[in-house]
Amino acid sequence: MTSPRSNAVAIGPEEDRKLVAAVERGGGVSAPLVDASALIWTAGPEEFPETLPAHVRWVQLPSAGVESWFEAGTIDAHPDVQFTSAAGAYAATVAEHALSLLLAGVRALPEHLAARTWDSRHFYDRIGTLRGATVTIVGAGGIGRALIPMLASLGADVIAVNRSGKPVPGARRSLPVSALDEVWASTDHVVVAAPSTAATHHLVGAAELARLRPHSWVINVARGPLVDTDAVVAALQAGTIGGVGLDVTDPEPLPDGHPLWTLTNAIVTPHDSNPPRLKNAAYADFVEANVNRFVTGEPLAAPIDRVQGY
Amino acid sequence: MTSPRSNAVAIGPEEDRKLVAAVERGGGVSAPLVDASALIWTAGPEEFPETLPAHVRWVQLPSAGVESWFEAGTIDAHPDVQFTSAAGAYAATVAEHALSLLLAGVRALPEHLAARTWDSRHFYDRIGTLRGATVTIVGAGGIGRALIPMLASLGADVIAVNRSGKPVPGARRSLPVSALDEVWASTDHVVVAAPSTAATHHLVGAAELARLRPHSWVINVARGPLVDTDAVVAALQAGTIGGVGLDVTDPEPLPDGHPLWTLTNAIVTPHDSNPPRLKNAAYADFVEANVNRFVTGEPLAAPIDRVQGY
Repeated sequence: MTSPRSNAVAIGPEEDRKLVAAVERGGGVSAPLVDASALIWTAGPEEFPETLPAHVRWVQLPSAGVESWFEAGTIDAHPDVQFTSAAGAYAATVAEHALSLLLAGVRALPEHLAARTWDSRHFYDRIGTLRGATVTIVGAGGIGRALIPMLASLGADVIAVNRSGKPVPGARRSLPVSALDEVWASTDHVVVAAPSTAATHHLVGAAELARLRPHSWVINVARGPLVDTDAVVAALQAGTIGGVGLDVTDPEPLPDGHPLWTLTNAIVTPHDSNPPRLKNAAYADFVEANVNRFVTGEPLAAPIDRVQGY
Repeated sequence: MTSPRSNAVAIGPEEDRKLVAAVERGGGVSAPLVDASALIWTAGPEEFPETLPAHVRWVQLPSAGVESWFEAGTIDAHPDVQFTSAAGAYAATVAEHALSLLLAGVRALPEHLAARTWDSRHFYDRIGTLRGATVTIVGAGGIGRALIPMLASLGADVIAVNRSGKPVPGARRSLPVSALDEVWASTDHVVVAAPSTAATHHLVGAAELARLRPHSWVINVARGPLVDTDAVVAALQAGTIGGVGLDVTDPEPLPDGHPLWTLTNAIVTPHDSNPPRLKNAAYADFVEANVNRFVTGEPLAAPIDRVQGY
């Protein structure tokens, strides 16, 4: 067996012209898997090869969250391969979506859209602003970090919550997730952008919602199980929070007839914060940068941690 | 009589905790009027004191337009005092409203809010992004200038249109209103934030709408007559533009039963981009900055011209 060129990169399961161009812009050479040192994957875990040539040292996966890859056993089946996710690739577009949901909520757009008459005093007390508001972002990964300058441009104060509490650039305060308890009563709004793990299951539940304020919006652009759906429905029905913007739900898909479809201040977007049209362009940019790191020997972006599971 | 400290600032007629904090952030010290060099006013002209201590050199008024203060004689009654208005104070909140409307449109939130089922493929082609999009702001006054950094944080390219074409900070291109004709076919979205004059009447009419794109959103946060309502209705019915976000309409109030109340991609907010509750917070920010100028001896923002009457 000949040793493959160290900059030879395969794309699979299907070749994609935009990705070939991205690999080449990154300094790689597009090659069949049998000759490659790396594999850029474009599909789900189902079609992933059971075995990889021994010289494949790196596999790039196309999704930011990789639970399904762990569940399918893909990552454990290849212990000598460095897997990277696309965490961060879609950060800016998902952050934009989160901001859209939050602003729509704060500005009472769902109620405005339901109105059929001008009488405006009704709305005066419903309209808020992000200027001077405290927005807590749970999860200071790519999405959270991309969201901070957007919120800053609107004059919001950001509390960033991450595992370690390590200071996050642009945040007024950075807290470890262990200190999250102290946040609920002091924040105006919450954006959930954390990985889905056993530790983050129902991170926003009845107790947390009860400590938020009547104008507080909760936005989830991460994974459905981080937020307790039944608790959200109860809080909206009781009017104890301002509303929710959910790009992800639990269960997902959200069944027809579910109360969230008709509750006034629930904005549900069916996991489309990063639809295919926006995604392909962003993945190509991410691949270009990571291929460049691979061929120049720099540490790859978004390495998957086999122990943490993301 | 002892001379008051030059950074002593009174707040009246009632003390307001947010304004006390703003004064202190600005480098001032909150003090009773009898000890103060400046007065931050929070009410109308009716309650304004007939006489002020001689050491009061500056009075900040809470409104952007000050006709009523001239009419009440307040300003003429205190010829040795520098009065400032709050002109520009509320630009950021109106700009935030414009951004909320634009993002809601680009992210297809009106259609999402009308949906009662998860089936998401329907939405995939409707969702856009401001990243890389061109947004033309007509009117580069306070609101337009406040909007630019918000759009920049999302990766949008801004074309700023003003009377002279003088370069506007943060805009990719600055154009005089005489060159507006060349913009319609090359912009993605339009935000109208210009004064209402004879020259700007129906600035956005049928011909202009016809040159926009099927995904283009038109936002009006200025005055209703700048946009031709009938032409907007026709464009929405024909599907030739993406949608409109209107905080102002012509006629205003928009009558019950008007087609804009029910057309899918029309978001109407009844002239509430700057409702009373938000004014207070914005005023505090303005006060902070002007107190800082006062204590450091810089020229104050929004000085009232006794001759011009504004």
